[in-house]
Amino acid sequence: MKPPIGRETTLCMSLSGRPGHFGSRFHNRLYELMGLDYVYKAFTTTDLTAAIGGIRALGIRGCAVSMPFKEAVIPLLDRLEASAAAIDSVNTVVNEAGCLTGYNTDYIAIRLLLEKHEVDPLTPFLLRGSGGMAKAIVAALRDAGFPNGTVVARNEPAGRALADSHGYAWRAEIGEAQAPLLINVTPLGMEGPEADALAFPAPQIAASTIAFDVVALPSMTPFLRAAEDVGKRLITGHEVVVLQALEQFVLYTGQIPGEDQVADAAAFART
Amino acid sequence: MKPPIGRETTLCMSLSGRPGHFGSRFHNRLYELMGLDYVYKAFTTTDLTAAIGGIRALGIRGCAVSMPFKEAVIPLLDRLEASAAAIDSVNTVVNEAGCLTGYNTDYIAIRLLLEKHEVDPLTPFLLRGSGGMAKAIVAALRDAGFPNGTVVARNEPAGRALADSHGYAWRAEIGEAQAPLLINVTPLGMEGPEADALAFPAPQIAASTIAFDVVALPSMTPFLRAAEDVGKRLITGHEVVVLQALEQFVLYTGQIPGEDQVADAAAFART
Repeated sequence: MKPPIGRETTLCMSLSGRPGHFGSRFHNRLYELMGLDYVYKAFTTTDLTAAIGGIRALGIRGCAVSMPFKEAVIPLLDRLEASAAAIDSVNTVVNEAGCLTGYNTDYIAIRLLLEKHEVDPLTPFLLRGSGGMAKAIVAALRDAGFPNGTVVARNEPAGRALADSHGYAWRAEIGEAQAPLLINVTPLGMEGPEADALAFPAPQIAASTIAFDVVALPSMTPFLRAAEDVGKRLITGHEVVVLQALEQFVLYTGQIPGEDQVADAAAFART
Repeated sequence: MKPPIGRETTLCMSLSGRPGHFGSRFHNRLYELMGLDYVYKAFTTTDLTAAIGGIRALGIRGCAVSMPFKEAVIPLLDRLEASAAAIDSVNTVVNEAGCLTGYNTDYIAIRLLLEKHEVDPLTPFLLRGSGGMAKAIVAALRDAGFPNGTVVARNEPAGRALADSHGYAWRAEIGEAQAPLLINVTPLGMEGPEADALAFPAPQIAASTIAFDVVALPSMTPFLRAAEDVGKRLITGHEVVVLQALEQFVLYTGQIPGEDQVADAAAFART
């Protein structure tokens, strides 16, 4: 059983422009299931420098970092681990006795998911998006040895830079392009104004083998539903979110939860 | 029932050189009993400025401040409430949208306890001690209209300054001095090397009416036991600790718990 919160309790937290509740629920649930003397709390801030100074001064063990702080946080840290250095973007800070190290568990999670789903690196991919998460995925694909891919992004400078720096092609629109691995890293299909949007057209879906959508809310986007309807293999945003949170959990606590515990916490955090 | 910790949960905390567990247990227990979406966590720090900056930047609602930070924290705050200004010592910080106000709930608690126990202000007192807590009590006595009192402190500069600035007498040793209200604000009788020490000699206890000991661990010190044995009225350090924590609770949450709830939390926090 989890002990009551006291002076020995370790605090972990998140910093984001608009805190969600997935992290709080996922981590606190695992602490409870595993009887760990930890507590997790989501924060926002208008003063990132003071917030990070507070993490150091208060001995807060770890901090998830979301938009819009993933790059701004870098100069405030003491070290970058390889995952964060690979994409100049931090989504996780670990505090070891006042020394703050930045990680990117999105990058780590993508690498692990590609392995778990046994995606052959020789599979060409078509990836939509050019933001921070797109950077994490493109770098993960490159580092996992995928030689052939195309970044589709209307934002030409961002799209070209992302593609060029990792050795991939760029195009502004999907057009006639096809690939066996389709990856959506845009808000198309996400809860909100673009909830009904289909990230890839039907012909591309029909010609593909694997549909990978980073959108987590909802996990089954119109793109994934359409792909499922025609029998394609799926990789969901929910898997990314859970796996990256699990990586954070392991970094913060040094403990590896069981599969059942992770499944329980993931289900609890979705509600 | 208390909701699970999430993005809406409010954090309160403490900063002290050596965190105890009373505050964590008292506040968290009341949050649970009252179903409030709050969590309380004790911290220590080696960088007070960054810690206070973190409170502001993270929107941490309140912070109890203990030794050695009670005076050092003052220049880091935006305002001092009258209780803290009266003694230039802060034991409580309240954060209103980034504006930090310092309070002293020890002072407030002493004033309330003198009323609760219906101590006639015309009662002369003999008070041992000259530290931060002695300052809170002497100021509370003065502001409650006690005209006659003596501060007993071997540390002549501190003792004289405390007595003079509040219009009381000073003496280095108890000697033959007597008074109906005896107040111990030294570590005599506290758990540790001075656990067996009697804060006032038997003749002074015999000649008194009310024995007031600020030592909270244990609550029944040798001084209070001796006074109880000869039928004196008692005011305990536990009452001070609970009442000052309750004042903090009300400042942080704006909620007033019932007497039963306070008694439950106080008993829980003592264990």
